[in-house]
Amino acid sequence: MPTTTAVLQSPETGAPFERATIERRDPGPHDVEIEIKHCGICHSDIHQVEGDWGSGIFPMVPGHEIVGVVASVGDEVEGFAEGDRVGVGCFVDSCGECEYCADGEEQHCTKGVVLTYNGKDYDGNPTHGGYSTRIVVKDHFVVHVPDEIELDVAAPLLCAGITTYSPLKRWGAGEGKRVAIVGMGGLGHVAVQIAKAMGAEVTVLSQTTSKEEDGRRFGADAYYATEDRETFRKLRGSFDLILNTVSANLPIDRYLSTLRVGGAMVNVGAPSEPDTYHAFSLIGGRRSLAGSSVGGLPETQEMLDFCAEHGVEPQIERVTVDEVDGAYERIADSSVRYRCVIDIASFG
Amino acid sequence: MPTTTAVLQSPETGAPFERATIERRDPGPHDVEIEIKHCGICHSDIHQVEGDWGSGIFPMVPGHEIVGVVASVGDEVEGFAEGDRVGVGCFVDSCGECEYCADGEEQHCTKGVVLTYNGKDYDGNPTHGGYSTRIVVKDHFVVHVPDEIELDVAAPLLCAGITTYSPLKRWGAGEGKRVAIVGMGGLGHVAVQIAKAMGAEVTVLSQTTSKEEDGRRFGADAYYATEDRETFRKLRGSFDLILNTVSANLPIDRYLSTLRVGGAMVNVGAPSEPDTYHAFSLIGGRRSLAGSSVGGLPETQEMLDFCAEHGVEPQIERVTVDEVDGAYERIADSSVRYRCVIDIASFG
Repeated sequence: MPTTTAVLQSPETGAPFERATIERRDPGPHDVEIEIKHCGICHSDIHQVEGDWGSGIFPMVPGHEIVGVVASVGDEVEGFAEGDRVGVGCFVDSCGECEYCADGEEQHCTKGVVLTYNGKDYDGNPTHGGYSTRIVVKDHFVVHVPDEIELDVAAPLLCAGITTYSPLKRWGAGEGKRVAIVGMGGLGHVAVQIAKAMGAEVTVLSQTTSKEEDGRRFGADAYYATEDRETFRKLRGSFDLILNTVSANLPIDRYLSTLRVGGAMVNVGAPSEPDTYHAFSLIGGRRSLAGSSVGGLPETQEMLDFCAEHGVEPQIERVTVDEVDGAYERIADSSVRYRCVIDIASFG
Repeated sequence: MPTTTAVLQSPETGAPFERATIERRDPGPHDVEIEIKHCGICHSDIHQVEGDWGSGIFPMVPGHEIVGVVASVGDEVEGFAEGDRVGVGCFVDSCGECEYCADGEEQHCTKGVVLTYNGKDYDGNPTHGGYSTRIVVKDHFVVHVPDEIELDVAAPLLCAGITTYSPLKRWGAGEGKRVAIVGMGGLGHVAVQIAKAMGAEVTVLSQTTSKEEDGRRFGADAYYATEDRETFRKLRGSFDLILNTVSANLPIDRYLSTLRVGGAMVNVGAPSEPDTYHAFSLIGGRRSLAGSSVGGLPETQEMLDFCAEHGVEPQIERVTVDEVDGAYERIADSSVRYRCVIDIASFG
């Protein structure tokens, strides 16, 4: 029997949230049924609810930073049992057969992954995310949350963690590397910790120095305000890697000028408008401007284990179900320190 | 005694060429004096004479695709002797001490390389390029032209060859890789041959198919017209690497869509106006937009040896000193097949 599930949904583009119920599918033999405990609020939830990235599927139940406890497992599920602490990230299905799925890079599945929400499953049914009390997910798309991390603190790692861990690892953040993290928000404050844990020398580039104390506590070796034009002059040719977590248009050439020869600026934030750059900014120093989304399932588990081992912990603000609209305003306003996590128990 | 040298110079921005004479420095102990035989006309010569890239140093004697024969060598020169067939590329000095010079990547010298022309040497004297009968160059910045390549044919390799060889090698063009070359001009027609010789599957993306027959003769496996919008739909997700040799603004997002996951589009042509791209074009497929200039001296010699071994040969049109203005017009017009090379003997 499908399970009736309490959800928080946005009925149409930009509309305030309302409580509702949906039916989750009856768990199949490879499914894990999860009692959701917490769900992080990702900036991309806001973009999708607001329609910044094109029209969405409404009513929309956002949430792809899901943590909870296994309520039941299908007959053929291995590796998960009732009571396990688990997480679900940005997608809940993929073809399982293409070269990318075979490589554990399901995010690049040639058939297209099934997004955790604001997507459609392969039968054409809309998907609903973690602003809800229960979710049923194919076992392959569920990860274990290590005991060392509190569940609520773990929630943001499912998107903010993997989105920053994956490019930091791929572009070689580590001993002897100078890494700049642009933006000290939900993603940035996790990226600083991960880059530091990987052994890199970490600089934060933020609009102002208002969060400098926090940045240094997270492990930043240096902290600069980008509103100060001197910053770019001082940092010319400094970084091996810039991880840009900001989803607003930036003066790309100015950032590229702070890269060393062969350096890369990797964007994980996506502004809705195009950016501009001058080819000379890339050519002179053999620089790259790249992009990265999330990671695949094996890398997501690796990231969680890495964070547990190195004490990487998002700094969260717990909000109730009824405070989500207000949280959206505060996130848009950059006043959250640093990630809001919905306490699903507040569905009451 | 300084040597009086016949040159072809542009007296001021955009002005037609005129014959003149300059004094070349007296060869020092580490200098090689070269009797220039041929000099390629690079598109960047035109950009600099026209002032497209900012104001130049005038009168300007362009030319950085220089080949000739050693006329004399300084007392401490090793490795070069009178009569040797040699070449000089885009720069003629560097600090020799920084990490990049130590790595043979002199093009990234932290002090700044001394450009072969339209530059100033470390004493502040303007440099004059290969549209001239003689040049005196520090031995480190001279390369050997292998016997298998005719001198006139070798000339374009000193810029067009190394500018395409370096990124093709660095970004892994080779067996099993699908490489697109954008533009079938001076650089593009060499890039096709080099990529093919490296073992890649090569596709040319040109405005029209007017040069398709030539492209296939140079080794292209496929050839598409970019003026046909269907091209981009067909090629979606096709390439591991795009080498963009065009120095005009292109619809970058459309090109990025033809890259596979993790693919890179490397620009070696530099439009004077900024380009635009959408971050989503990079993020979704973990793609890169990069730039590359020329290579260092060891790589330039390696490229010449590679071209000799694999029969990579620019297709040239020989022009006389008095035909250079006309050649500029035809290059700007894309009607040259495929590189003009000045016959320095025509100084008479």
